[in-house]
Amino acid sequence: MATVTIPPSVPSPAEDCELLRKAFAGWGTNEDLIIQILAHRNSAQRKLIRQTYADLFEEDILKELDKELSNDFEVSLACTFCTSYSTGRVVLLWTMDPAERDAFLANEATKRLSASNWVLMEIACTRSSHDLFMARQAYHARYKRSVEEDVSYHTTGDFRKLLVPLLSSFRYEGEEVNMTVAKSEAKILHEKILEKAYNHEELIRILTTRSKAQLNATLNYYNNEFGNVINKDLKADPKDEYLTLLRAIVKCLTCPEKYYAKVLRSAINKLGTDEWALTRVVATRAEVDMQRIKEEFHRRNSAPLDIAISGDTSGDYKKMLLALIGHGNN
Amino acid sequence: MATVTIPPSVPSPAEDCELLRKAFAGWGTNEDLIIQILAHRNSAQRKLIRQTYADLFEEDILKELDKELSNDFEVSLACTFCTSYSTGRVVLLWTMDPAERDAFLANEATKRLSASNWVLMEIACTRSSHDLFMARQAYHARYKRSVEEDVSYHTTGDFRKLLVPLLSSFRYEGEEVNMTVAKSEAKILHEKILEKAYNHEELIRILTTRSKAQLNATLNYYNNEFGNVINKDLKADPKDEYLTLLRAIVKCLTCPEKYYAKVLRSAINKLGTDEWALTRVVATRAEVDMQRIKEEFHRRNSAPLDIAISGDTSGDYKKMLLALIGHGNN
Repeated sequence: MATVTIPPSVPSPAEDCELLRKAFAGWGTNEDLIIQILAHRNSAQRKLIRQTYADLFEEDILKELDKELSNDFEVSLACTFCTSYSTGRVVLLWTMDPAERDAFLANEATKRLSASNWVLMEIACTRSSHDLFMARQAYHARYKRSVEEDVSYHTTGDFRKLLVPLLSSFRYEGEEVNMTVAKSEAKILHEKILEKAYNHEELIRILTTRSKAQLNATLNYYNNEFGNVINKDLKADPKDEYLTLLRAIVKCLTCPEKYYAKVLRSAINKLGTDEWALTRVVATRAEVDMQRIKEEFHRRNSAPLDIAISGDTSGDYKKMLLALIGHGNN
Repeated sequence: MATVTIPPSVPSPAEDCELLRKAFAGWGTNEDLIIQILAHRNSAQRKLIRQTYADLFEEDILKELDKELSNDFEVSLACTFCTSYSTGRVVLLWTMDPAERDAFLANEATKRLSASNWVLMEIACTRSSHDLFMARQAYHARYKRSVEEDVSYHTTGDFRKLLVPLLSSFRYEGEEVNMTVAKSEAKILHEKILEKAYNHEELIRILTTRSKAQLNATLNYYNNEFGNVINKDLKADPKDEYLTLLRAIVKCLTCPEKYYAKVLRSAINKLGTDEWALTRVVATRAEVDMQRIKEEFHRRNSAPLDIAISGDTSGDYKKMLLALIGHGNN
């Protein structure tokens, strides 16, 4: 379900590195060449390119890309609306190893100017248990702290109560479902929602610890037994940020493609385009489930995602996004 | 700092398996031979023995041991005081892979008849971050659920608030310390303790997420600045179980050998001996830090651990324990 396209015959990492080195050389940077190479390599191949580049030229290719795409990656954190940074940001995020990228995004999401409960929730709920753990390991390596340590330090109240266990979870991933538990927990959820006890520890326990298969069974029972999908019942106050996050958690755990299609739609429809969100979703999902996200986007918006992106972005940024979402593949 | 002794020349796993098979054969079981082999192999060697045994005889050696040592491992769960089960239990626990053993102990600790917040806390606080994660993986494999899922389901109130994040943590293990954080968090801890807000989320956050090095700096500052070690201040009501657990957490995170020496002392001094605790500590620490636990035990009790164990246990159970704690080594 990835949208990234890999050429039938991939050059060796050394060949890719030589070409990239050329693309960086001289006065101008050859962005086309950079995109042509990096946007068409999978994460294992990009990892090899990064290692080979370091061996050959004793430079970190991420730093080279940062310099050449005229961005300051660290400065760009504070500059959500500088669209000139977007090409650099998407190329850099994409080139990073997925675990390292998640660690980077999570860390960014704990900082004051780029704080985002949404990004933290996405990482916690849409990665596999193994991938989430890899991100936690990468966080140690890069920031010398644990992700739960930083998140619990920087969040408070109900958001902390939700996000810390979400990010610390290591959910079971088998398909086994216990229907007795599903029924009793659907009732607990319904009861707590009726009482408007949305931050009740039982509700949080269920959402943060149960396997996705088990949750699915619970929520299906909820729907059948109480007549509404849970997210409808969680819409008491559509402006309440905590409730919005709860609904997003339910979506991310049960049908992430719907969640992401909606994030993309809001990002594109926004006055001025939310390139921050657009970049994040494309860079993190192109190798995972972007095909399904595209289908869902098309279904809900009666327009294909590539047309929507084309109409809203330009230049190298647009080229990179379209390459990653497999524009023109089929 | 392990106390297990491995012979200078170790037989091949196949040779060990053949001997073990003989020990199981016929009318009586040769417990001496079983102890002589298994108590003198490290975890990697025991793992190989288990694999080889399965390959050679198509049997799980754990089941064979269980049968031969005339115990029913599963039944023995409900039978804390049946000392006849003790030999079987210590041999079985020891033979298990450490991660699998922790998963088993954690699961047992969530069950009604063998529930124990202490065992859960020990596993969460005295294992390395990597080993704790391996135990969580082993829990998935064995129980088809996650450990945090079961623990949060089976605990309530303040104990749940503490145990779930403790078991879900993946603490950073580097030596880096932030002194500004140490000072400010020592103040938070002191403030919350003064207010008797022992279950305050900030206090729990600090204890459950900070690295051991960072916590050590915080607690040293606490001691210097406020005149008492934190555990003295956490002794407001010595009979309060939650406070007792908090003190044990502090001990396990900062000086586990003191914690374990005390558990052993209580287990041995108890009328009838708490073989459950004695077995657990010996089986889980013999390959880790039993040497330091022995030193600490000797220092605090003016008697060596092996003499204390010898005076309090008998038969094969005693032989196995003494072998594991390296009796007669030095």
